[in-house]
Amino acid sequence: MASTHFAAEPGVPQIVITREFDAPRELLFRASTDPDLLVQWLAPRGLTMTVDRFDLRDGGTWRYQLWEADGTDHAFHGVFHGEPSPDGIVRTFEVEGMPGHVSMWTVTFTEQGGKILLTHNIVYQSVEDRDLDLRPDLEESVSYSMDRLDELLARLAPVSR
Amino acid sequence: MASTHFAAEPGVPQIVITREFDAPRELLFRASTDPDLLVQWLAPRGLTMTVDRFDLRDGGTWRYQLWEADGTDHAFHGVFHGEPSPDGIVRTFEVEGMPGHVSMWTVTFTEQGGKILLTHNIVYQSVEDRDLDLRPDLEESVSYSMDRLDELLARLAPVSR
Repeated sequence: MASTHFAAEPGVPQIVITREFDAPRELLFRASTDPDLLVQWLAPRGLTMTVDRFDLRDGGTWRYQLWEADGTDHAFHGVFHGEPSPDGIVRTFEVEGMPGHVSMWTVTFTEQGGKILLTHNIVYQSVEDRDLDLRPDLEESVSYSMDRLDELLARLAPVSR
Repeated sequence: MASTHFAAEPGVPQIVITREFDAPRELLFRASTDPDLLVQWLAPRGLTMTVDRFDLRDGGTWRYQLWEADGTDHAFHGVFHGEPSPDGIVRTFEVEGMPGHVSMWTVTFTEQGGKILLTHNIVYQSVEDRDLDLRPDLEESVSYSMDRLDELLARLAPVSR
């Protein structure tokens, strides 16, 4: 299984996460945009995810929730910018309860050597805002999700190719 | 007249523009959000500006055009994130004809020593994207607009205070 690369440079309001997948590009796009597939890999360990809306079009809005075992929820929402496609997905990201703090995610799917490099590029309004997200377990949490995505792709690929 | 400070650090996908104004905070907010006032200061030298829409609310969209003397237009649009107020305005920014390139503007109005520090904080998806905006005349163009804003505030302040 490939490993996840996580970059957060000092003084730069950005996080870049990359991971190589041995799966069709269209399938990786689908796993990143179909709510029924997203909930199978995106949630951090121990949390479950529900998607309220995921209106995948230029100007469309999305919202999802992460649920702890005790019923506590964490909600997130944002807006798609530009028509989402395997060439890229740009969306804003807000944590509900933290008004004024907005980040912007650009997801790309780059063919290289017969595999697909998935890149999550996240920019924040400031380094301070970025550092709020850089909790100690973030890198491990992202790797966990990417491993779940890898497993999901392996299950889907045989019927999708 | 105060001067405009312009910061674009190497390797950081961000531009920060600051300018101090001797005007009421609410008036500076209004000059930044009322289309009838915006068109009086925001356009670069030699261009005129029209506002198609400026739906100033959380999730509202905006669009404006800059017109050259020969009738050529340049159009821009985006989405407000969070409820715009004198505490801050967050909006995304897209240049029409450049899909996939989105920047995010955070405008704040900070009281300091009886004056207001206006800050335009712009973050881009990458340093390469930021550098596309860093044309040689950008700093002079921004200073020109901020000087027009200063003049507008001086005209408005007597009736607004």
